[in-house]
Amino acid sequence: MKKHLSVILTFAFAVISSPLLAQSSDPLPSWNEGSTKQAIIQFVSEVTDSDSANFVAPADRIATFDNDGTLWSEKPMYFQILFALDQIKAQAADHPEWKTTKPYSLVLNDQLDKLTADDLIQLVLQTHTGVISDEFTAVVKNWINTAKHPVTGAPYTDMLFQPMLELLDFLEDNGFKNFIVSGGGNAFMRAWASDVYNIPSERIIGTQLATEFVNVDGSYQVKRMPGVVVNNDKVEKPLQIYQHIGKRPIASFGNSDGDLQMLQWTTSGPGPRLAMYVHHTDEKREWKYDRESSVGKLDKGLDEAKEKGWLVADMKNDWVQIYPSK
Amino acid sequence: MKKHLSVILTFAFAVISSPLLAQSSDPLPSWNEGSTKQAIIQFVSEVTDSDSANFVAPADRIATFDNDGTLWSEKPMYFQILFALDQIKAQAADHPEWKTTKPYSLVLNDQLDKLTADDLIQLVLQTHTGVISDEFTAVVKNWINTAKHPVTGAPYTDMLFQPMLELLDFLEDNGFKNFIVSGGGNAFMRAWASDVYNIPSERIIGTQLATEFVNVDGSYQVKRMPGVVVNNDKVEKPLQIYQHIGKRPIASFGNSDGDLQMLQWTTSGPGPRLAMYVHHTDEKREWKYDRESSVGKLDKGLDEAKEKGWLVADMKNDWVQIYPSK
Repeated sequence: MKKHLSVILTFAFAVISSPLLAQSSDPLPSWNEGSTKQAIIQFVSEVTDSDSANFVAPADRIATFDNDGTLWSEKPMYFQILFALDQIKAQAADHPEWKTTKPYSLVLNDQLDKLTADDLIQLVLQTHTGVISDEFTAVVKNWINTAKHPVTGAPYTDMLFQPMLELLDFLEDNGFKNFIVSGGGNAFMRAWASDVYNIPSERIIGTQLATEFVNVDGSYQVKRMPGVVVNNDKVEKPLQIYQHIGKRPIASFGNSDGDLQMLQWTTSGPGPRLAMYVHHTDEKREWKYDRESSVGKLDKGLDEAKEKGWLVADMKNDWVQIYPSK
Repeated sequence: MKKHLSVILTFAFAVISSPLLAQSSDPLPSWNEGSTKQAIIQFVSEVTDSDSANFVAPADRIATFDNDGTLWSEKPMYFQILFALDQIKAQAADHPEWKTTKPYSLVLNDQLDKLTADDLIQLVLQTHTGVISDEFTAVVKNWINTAKHPVTGAPYTDMLFQPMLELLDFLEDNGFKNFIVSGGGNAFMRAWASDVYNIPSERIIGTQLATEFVNVDGSYQVKRMPGVVVNNDKVEKPLQIYQHIGKRPIASFGNSDGDLQMLQWTTSGPGPRLAMYVHHTDEKREWKYDRESSVGKLDKGLDEAKEKGWLVADMKNDWVQIYPSK
């Protein structure tokens, strides 16, 4: 068995044209020609070719994608944190005491650099819990449709990565099931990610906050409660994939050390495997960061990718464009 | 909004013929004509009729099914417990000390009536954990293909409920997504349920045992560990549906008080809702039990079904046949 097919694929420069691929035209137009693009196409070509020794039945074509930094940007901080900060400002009128109470006062006075990690958790729990599940979904939907990114001024859904959207479609068109496996909250993501990525709600796996079953005047509801049940990062990613899907992915995509264990588990299965890191190398069109970044740190993963021949998509060189055209 | 549409549907005896239903012939041939069958057909007809005020978009046609006692039998004890007992016997040769160590000795000497609830948990953890995930799946697959039920002598998959298999197909054919939401272990079920119910692995929600991410000679694996992370019963069912799917079902099917909260949550949403209990009333063809049973106790749920007009499928009177024909 070729356990590390990606090692070989990385160096497979030859243009592949397979009649079995669902698209006859270029399925990845926002990817520059090169080894990364060709390795992806070669992998999909082989696992969908019933004459190939590397054929994989559709039911086992499981692909898992990290979200923040892999499918959309994550700077200057995770967009879910920016949602929380927006909510604090929106709720401030109902909480006059916040003007003089940390960490709320830091948000209201735009002293974000003084927020500690514990402060951020407190702000997230304040803005994500204490409400019935349906109400929270409505709040996130309203935010994603109206909020603007503090640096680009663009709606957040304009900051998805066009090449990754094409990759999602390419896999879906070839019988794969795509899953999101993110450190982001599952309910936060489901409010918008299902639509923009064309991925059903149950294929979005994320961090789980606590819940409680409540009776509200004879109507039964799920209430969101302060508390983190599953922090879906690092080791928890493969474990949650196992609990949620029950199958090992054959392809995984991430951008940080938080995705390393997901890529390790994916590539430890038999048969053809694809692992890819998105490397943020483009300070002009997006952001440039890796080993030293506080958000989306990619250090051990970059070394292991090189050692094991995993794909590394260089945003500057591999991607024709970063964000979708308007 | 008709919050309790099922109340009305229960009394809708008139035969409905809708051109929108996917089947032109009888979609539920193992169901006797009567109010239960007609209420199911009426519900599906309405939610799939785009001209109906009760139309539901396909993405929201979520149906959740309990497994033990709802889709297959559960007597004399849950089949997963019978699997555990079979495994204890199969492993006994490697554990000579079990001959004189409780609870193992009770199993080996066929003194099952002396097993306590704690004993059963110990036996389940002994036979379900301490192994790599892929190995456990292989063990269950081998068991389901070879084991025989202690009372009927039949393979366990011969003890599925034919009328419920037809109901799963009927819903699937009409754009529903079916999910299993069971107190059974998620990995135990996925080894066979995906095939026999035609439900993808990620739509099987069950009890979660602990896991650990391990490095075995450079290969990364998920190891199953002794410990219960989620006991997917009662209140946990709607909460796990929320964490896993992120949507409230519009139809739910159960057979015991352990399913009550799932049915309560399902019927507390707006628009058309269907809730149904399978009532074990046929001591000749299956088993007869409800309020006093230690397995599959149906007491509070039976009262609430009557009070709220939920459907109750009477196995003796509503079902033409129980098990699939051979």
